[in-house]
Amino acid sequence: MPAVRLRGMKQEPIRPTDDEARTLARRLLAHMRHASLGSLDPETGAPLVTRIAVQIDGQGAPVALLSGLAAHSRALIADPRAGLLVTDEAASKGDAMTHARLSILVRAEQIATTPEIREAWLARDPKAKVYIDLPDFRFWRLVPQSGLLNGGFGRAFKLAPADMLQG
Amino acid sequence: MPAVRLRGMKQEPIRPTDDEARTLARRLLAHMRHASLGSLDPETGAPLVTRIAVQIDGQGAPVALLSGLAAHSRALIADPRAGLLVTDEAASKGDAMTHARLSILVRAEQIATTPEIREAWLARDPKAKVYIDLPDFRFWRLVPQSGLLNGGFGRAFKLAPADMLQG
Repeated sequence: MPAVRLRGMKQEPIRPTDDEARTLARRLLAHMRHASLGSLDPETGAPLVTRIAVQIDGQGAPVALLSGLAAHSRALIADPRAGLLVTDEAASKGDAMTHARLSILVRAEQIATTPEIREAWLARDPKAKVYIDLPDFRFWRLVPQSGLLNGGFGRAFKLAPADMLQG
Repeated sequence: MPAVRLRGMKQEPIRPTDDEARTLARRLLAHMRHASLGSLDPETGAPLVTRIAVQIDGQGAPVALLSGLAAHSRALIADPRAGLLVTDEAASKGDAMTHARLSILVRAEQIATTPEIREAWLARDPKAKVYIDLPDFRFWRLVPQSGLLNGGFGRAFKLAPADMLQG
């Protein structure tokens, strides 16, 4: 993969994607229960960042459970381009800037709530029982378009969707 | 403040901004050492979400220290519209969806590194000494335009810049 050149700056420190990077990305996704969502604010076009509840499905693709009353749902209905920052939920100690994290650009698609999706969600997030059946809550599939894995200072990798999904 | 109406949905549960909300927002900002940044990917226009090192300055306004080699710097140079998700760094236990967090839409402005800014930063983040003087690192002021405070399930407030800055 050719490194990107910035105006007058050094090359971007992107390393060739290897199996270690793929394994790390899949581990971050497997443990994901919430993440930071970027959506496009319909009024200003600015990137609004909010915390959402999100898990992977059987194929390793992120599925979110969102309130239709929240600003991010309004934003995703207006424009499906979104971003996700997935952090290492096991890492709470030390400098957060050295923890692994994965930035994914996604396309958001509202999906129907089936008994299978509902049960799979509750198996991982039992506390959602309080609100999962409220009329404004909806499931959304966040289809990965590209990824940027930061494995800590100076360890960056570009990932394709197939690098992040379960093999 | 008028509540926003969604197509056929209930009113957005935004509460009137009060001093408790302002105090909470300022507390989240005062403890901030890193945050999730939303920036607009120049290639796709999608909202890229990345983790950045960011602190408030003497006026309570966020200042970030960013590598010019990172994708978010390239994005902010192309379009200064950005978003910040500030979480409760003291809260690591329990359901993350019940923790307080603040979403801010900001305008990013690169600022010159002065000895004062450099020293103030290092006083709060001594480990940055390793990279603060590298040639590609730059300080950015993230000027708040509007805020959305989530104090936990069902407790949402819209904030103006003056509600978030130190009084």
